Amino acid sequence: MKKILMNAVHMSCVGDIAHGLWTHPRDQSERYTDSAYWVELAQALERGRFDNLFLADIIGANDVFEGRPDAALREAVQMPIDDPLLLVPLMAHATRHLGFGVTVNLTYEHPFPLARRFTTLDHLSRGRVAWNIVTGFLDSAARGMGLARQHGHDERYERAEDFMAAAYKLWEGSWEDDAVVRDRAHRVYTEPTRVHAIDHDGPYYRVQAAHLSEPSVQRTPVLFQAGASTRGLDFAARHAECVFVSGNKQQAREIVAKIRQRATAFGRNPQDLRFFLGVVVVVAPTDGLAQEKYAEYRLHASAQAGLAHFSSQTGIDFSRYDLDEPISLVKTDAVQSFLESVTTQSEKRWSVRKLLDQMTLGSRHTPIVGSPQRVADELESWVRDADIDGFNLVRTVVPEGFVDFVDLVVPELQSRGSYKTEYTEGSLRDKLFGAGPRLPARHPAGAYRVGAEPRNLA
Amino acid sequence: MKKILMNAVHMSCVGDIAHGLWTHPRDQSERYTDSAYWVELAQALERGRFDNLFLADIIGANDVFEGRPDAALREAVQMPIDDPLLLVPLMAHATRHLGFGVTVNLTYEHPFPLARRFTTLDHLSRGRVAWNIVTGFLDSAARGMGLARQHGHDERYERAEDFMAAAYKLWEGSWEDDAVVRDRAHRVYTEPTRVHAIDHDGPYYRVQAAHLSEPSVQRTPVLFQAGASTRGLDFAARHAECVFVSGNKQQAREIVAKIRQRATAFGRNPQDLRFFLGVVVVVAPTDGLAQEKYAEYRLHASAQAGLAHFSSQTGIDFSRYDLDEPISLVKTDAVQSFLESVTTQSEKRWSVRKLLDQMTLGSRHTPIVGSPQRVADELESWVRDADIDGFNLVRTVVPEGFVDFVDLVVPELQSRGSYKTEYTEGSLRDKLFGAGPRLPARHPAGAYRVGAEPRNLA
Repeated sequence: MKKILMNAVHMSCVGDIAHGLWTHPRDQSERYTDSAYWVELAQALERGRFDNLFLADIIGANDVFEGRPDAALREAVQMPIDDPLLLVPLMAHATRHLGFGVTVNLTYEHPFPLARRFTTLDHLSRGRVAWNIVTGFLDSAARGMGLARQHGHDERYERAEDFMAAAYKLWEGSWEDDAVVRDRAHRVYTEPTRVHAIDHDGPYYRVQAAHLSEPSVQRTPVLFQAGASTRGLDFAARHAECVFVSGNKQQAREIVAKIRQRATAFGRNPQDLRFFLGVVVVVAPTDGLAQEKYAEYRLHASAQAGLAHFSSQTGIDFSRYDLDEPISLVKTDAVQSFLESVTTQSEKRWSVRKLLDQMTLGSRHTPIVGSPQRVADELESWVRDADIDGFNLVRTVVPEGFVDFVDLVVPELQSRGSYKTEYTEGSLRDKLFGAGPRLPARHPAGAYRVGAEPRNLA
Repeated sequence: MKKILMNAVHMSCVGDIAHGLWTHPRDQSERYTDSAYWVELAQALERGRFDNLFLADIIGANDVFEGRPDAALREAVQMPIDDPLLLVPLMAHATRHLGFGVTVNLTYEHPFPLARRFTTLDHLSRGRVAWNIVTGFLDSAARGMGLARQHGHDERYERAEDFMAAAYKLWEGSWEDDAVVRDRAHRVYTEPTRVHAIDHDGPYYRVQAAHLSEPSVQRTPVLFQAGASTRGLDFAARHAECVFVSGNKQQAREIVAKIRQRATAFGRNPQDLRFFLGVVVVVAPTDGLAQEKYAEYRLHASAQAGLAHFSSQTGIDFSRYDLDEPISLVKTDAVQSFLESVTTQSEKRWSVRKLLDQMTLGSRHTPIVGSPQRVADELESWVRDADIDGFNLVRTVVPEGFVDFVDLVVPELQSRGSYKTEYTEGSLRDKLFGAGPRLPARHPAGAYRVGAEPRNLA
């Protein structure tokens, strides 16, 4: 069986996406402003041979519920929140193999400085950085940036395409591999003829400059993406190397097949993509103890805070509905992925009560609860049946939930041969794909390399 | 005598502002992409009780000389260059007292995410971060950001004023001191009535949102600034806590007096400001050994690279002049500060030869060369005669030059009672001013606090 890949998912905030669990007496997520908290977490994950610590992010307040941010603030639903990029260097310094994926919303960035930021992270981590590309969904973020509201869904993806083209040119096409010569005797650090100012004049972004940084191990960071809409699927199929999926096994399998097939249409190899399913796991030495732990966690979880979060994700103020009043959900990306994640639920009509019942750990993920054997069985069956490559392990009580997984589930999977016992050497991209640190030439970024064959990228 | 304050100045690049010294066999600045390099440097500076490591930055290529970036690239004149903000968390984690000042050019940032970035750094460093506010001077940077050229000088300062107002509102006026209650029993992390969306609608920036991060130790980072123009002096007098000055002793004394006086006019206390003079020091156990070291350093310095750098700072392509052809320099900020830094030179007419003669260590600073006693005498005389508070120690051969200062000059100053032997506890602002971690209420930022008396800030 192929080796299961594992990402831990966390955010630089208290509430994250498992709402209410910060109130658990053993939860330490209040330490998110403490650098030692992150170093300890990274080292624990590396002990468990995790592939990545994935740091999600959001700009803006969850203020759709009740038309104000009060519920979100009370329960620390992703606010306050600190900048996750700044956590990577200190964790990279304290580890040797763990990768670091970070969400950056490109809508509020410019490719020129953002490209430098990621190259710097790739330098400092020696090639272990990944970017989760998002375009945002909060009007409150837009207002923070001086706009009346966010750009429309399609415009966000058009911007994203333009942004990526500019970023690829900076990462892949500006500095040749042998530009930096470091010749002290002849006083030549960089050979100027091998550095090229890019000339990007797109519908949204214009960049006429050489990349500020010299090439890093991976040049372009490993690219993560999660998009459930048609536009989002196309974006993932063109750009993403690691894709986040949801739904039941059948649905996940279909979406994996669909994205692989579309990637082929874009000239990529379907094996250039890895698929990850979000999971919540509560594990203990026996099924009974795991159920006890789950019951104890539930006492601290907050479905109400989960609902406040989901209001922002869907744009629907659930505070205006009675508990059992039927709600016809519009099919935004977030709703679609939520509906698909509920494997036993085929209805298209919902109620607040049903939503709350779903969020037993303050998250819309149905938890896998049980002994290491039971959890391993379930994870393996997902990989087998849904053609996914691994999991995004969502936080529960931190760091306990991650450490439990490292101490209990990882050894079980290792004993079955379905999980690595040692890291392979090299960059994050080497570890994930085993074909060197750089994007393959067939990826859209390859077309922007110096000397690349011209090709039609439309 | 008052205790001398010390900042070390470096950049996340090879060439920095002492050009050519990267070619010295003992120079390690090529390691700038290695996190261990920065941790070692920070720890050495903390051993020497330095107040700050100040990381300068620049966006854009030095491409005025010969109308192309070739000379700058060959000699690594501030390019390639990585993002300095990302270095702070890992150095802060490895130290307990050292402050970290970082240059960020606000022209290409938006206050909403930049405010979060600085709060995150202040969290992770437990209140040890400072921001050196710059508005940039390179057209090449503007082209990287999609503009034809940089904004005009006055517009840059108008933008800066608007930016600061928005940032102060986010840092000082959005979250009340007691907003974060962390009450697990009652499930209240933040009391929503104590968090306020700011409503900033300025000529350049609009922000209608609450600050994303909870308050950090210092809230507003310690503010550094260097501005030699009239507009720049006013900006420093209004906002800066640490001001970088240059010129001979008489000139420095005048400028310090002028800024303190203007600060008073803006309602501040003149003792709310600290003044730092840029210095290059070559020290060895005896004067003779120091002169030998200086001669050896000079072999590796590059006045030519310094000239390429100075071309960008002045906008004058010095490659078009013969060695002894007279050059009438226009009085930009950079030129003015350069002229003022040359204490023996009163002429207003220059030549390339004179410029090159000045840049003996590839920098426009005249080095102080000598035994620890001689260097200490010189530093003390500056503090006494020019009413400055300390120095920005510019890199020479790194880390050797910084370590020499720590091992030789610091003990000499300590034995004279003019340098601290231990850090005081508390935030960077506590250490610099001894009056708590926050800006005093009389600083312009104070007007934006919740409950502040309304006042006219024009």
